[in-house]
Amino acid sequence: MDLLAKGSVTGEGITRDELRLAARNHALPLEALRYPITPVGLHYLLTHFDIPVVDAGTYRLEVGGNVDQPLSLSMDDLRARERLTVPVTFECAGNGRALLEPRPVSMPWLTEAVGTAEWGGTPLKPLLDEAGVQANAIEVLFTGHDRGVEGGVAQTYERSLRLTDDAVEQALLVDEMNGAPLPPQHGFPLRLVVPGWYGMANVKWLARITLLAEPFDGYQNKVSYRMYDNDGVPGEPLHRMLPRSLMLPPGVPEYMTRRRHLAPGPVTLTGRAWSGRGPIELVEVSVDGGATFAAAELDEPLGPAAWRGWRFGWDASAGEHVLCPRATDAAGNVQPVEPIWNPKGYVNNAVQRLDVTVA
Amino acid sequence: MDLLAKGSVTGEGITRDELRLAARNHALPLEALRYPITPVGLHYLLTHFDIPVVDAGTYRLEVGGNVDQPLSLSMDDLRARERLTVPVTFECAGNGRALLEPRPVSMPWLTEAVGTAEWGGTPLKPLLDEAGVQANAIEVLFTGHDRGVEGGVAQTYERSLRLTDDAVEQALLVDEMNGAPLPPQHGFPLRLVVPGWYGMANVKWLARITLLAEPFDGYQNKVSYRMYDNDGVPGEPLHRMLPRSLMLPPGVPEYMTRRRHLAPGPVTLTGRAWSGRGPIELVEVSVDGGATFAAAELDEPLGPAAWRGWRFGWDASAGEHVLCPRATDAAGNVQPVEPIWNPKGYVNNAVQRLDVTVA
Repeated sequence: MDLLAKGSVTGEGITRDELRLAARNHALPLEALRYPITPVGLHYLLTHFDIPVVDAGTYRLEVGGNVDQPLSLSMDDLRARERLTVPVTFECAGNGRALLEPRPVSMPWLTEAVGTAEWGGTPLKPLLDEAGVQANAIEVLFTGHDRGVEGGVAQTYERSLRLTDDAVEQALLVDEMNGAPLPPQHGFPLRLVVPGWYGMANVKWLARITLLAEPFDGYQNKVSYRMYDNDGVPGEPLHRMLPRSLMLPPGVPEYMTRRRHLAPGPVTLTGRAWSGRGPIELVEVSVDGGATFAAAELDEPLGPAAWRGWRFGWDASAGEHVLCPRATDAAGNVQPVEPIWNPKGYVNNAVQRLDVTVA
Repeated sequence: MDLLAKGSVTGEGITRDELRLAARNHALPLEALRYPITPVGLHYLLTHFDIPVVDAGTYRLEVGGNVDQPLSLSMDDLRARERLTVPVTFECAGNGRALLEPRPVSMPWLTEAVGTAEWGGTPLKPLLDEAGVQANAIEVLFTGHDRGVEGGVAQTYERSLRLTDDAVEQALLVDEMNGAPLPPQHGFPLRLVVPGWYGMANVKWLARITLLAEPFDGYQNKVSYRMYDNDGVPGEPLHRMLPRSLMLPPGVPEYMTRRRHLAPGPVTLTGRAWSGRGPIELVEVSVDGGATFAAAELDEPLGPAAWRGWRFGWDASAGEHVLCPRATDAAGNVQPVEPIWNPKGYVNNAVQRLDVTVA
């Protein structure tokens, strides 16, 4: 299949459609990596359709499908359940897409579609246990209140997890972000958070949970958010995050190019790294554009599902440099230095490249 | 001067530099027009350099230059002064830039670089009176804590107002946004808000106020944020906002194109309109791409410096439509239907165009 001819990828400059998505979907400004918990308004944001209005006063979460006892829960019911607050890092599965050539045409993320929040809520599993998952159920479907058209299909945003995924055990139904009620754009009044997974799993403005006896074949599982091969044939649905590290840009920026300017001498480079496949075991830094790497020092972990800070001493010499951090997780996944192309532009976790002028 | 050859404008697709700016600088998602006061995280955001870290505990606002009595004020000192909370709408002076052809190369805003917040703080004028502005002072300079390089010039962000501007009487030093301390990205712990002016006047992370006996000739007054003529010669510094109206998109969106889909029949179109040159007196809506307009009904004003809601009944017929709202202010300024080009891409307040499919 000629994807270029099909118009799903392009070698040209970013189009106005892509720009419109880039304007409404917000990335983390890289200097916000300084905060272990991302302040509201700096966390990345991807909204497929419109942010919907949901009235918390009349809100009900419906739990149904292949269960013994369907549930209908108010926000008060949900808040009366067991509560947890967990720092969780997640990023968009399309993070890195705009760095692929040719460029798959969708939301043109560079490297910063990420954030970490203290998500507060109640675990999913006891609620499923209370509803009584029937023996024939194989998936659990999460349906939002947000509606629109994507890939020619009118739809409500919804995505499923397999009941055999350990994600089901770890998932949270959250109504708080950083100690306050969810902002509208992050799923008010209730959203799902699946620690370790790409953001598409974390269904916002949650309306319904449905136990299914058949695999869900809706758009966001069947067409979108799957890894496609280079002929455009869909493979497995996307799930856990591959490792990535981002560096807090040193020095000061040039407004337009974001090239960094700093004085020669010793500087401590810092950043954060995460993976959904295992704890971060190693972060290395290259100060020569990825030719050679040396190990950074890791900070204490924030939590099992949150990014991990790191620091690296660099004696900056006058000249032009390209800085690249590289993360490795306990499962042995390592960030590639060069992007690995795929037709939909998913999970491009090639190392960040920061241009620095030392003078 | 051939601006195209000079590389300051382009007829090509958006570049990676522009995309990087579009990622870190956030626009208002259009559906957030539904909120009279924009929730934190949905207000537009333009950060020239990096969001700086400022410690509120040791913070001092310095007031100096041509004054009888220099002041040095802590956050407690500032909070003990007269307090006001005012809803203020402001937008970026570059709002609309990316809709110009050829496109001036800078932050590629479409139409949504706007927001309205309840800004809480203390008026500027009594503080200047306390410091005692000397007779030879003609301008007041506001200097931020944010530093970087722009147009080849290493600088701290700073911009002045003329003491003869009524803006000086109306300006506020704010430490609260929507009833909470300023978020880091909006200028924590203290910023300037100048009601009615484009956002460049609202210096964030305020470090110093300096009374000047000569016109300020720093980059953001002398080179940036001036209206240039078509030969690239700088004119007056930008100041008060021209009128603009934006419509809350009806129906539901298509993910990629943001084209709206709705069913035939009566629908109430709503939106908000603002101007820094006078109260909004008229909003008209075109359902035929700007060929003909009819008056909308105005909501009660939120306040003299805030956008004004409007509503318009439309009997949507099957087919493709382009919807355009158009605002007129009490000073007689009317939004143009077609963009008015200028080399830096400032104040393009041509009417919004919303593509709608009714079926």
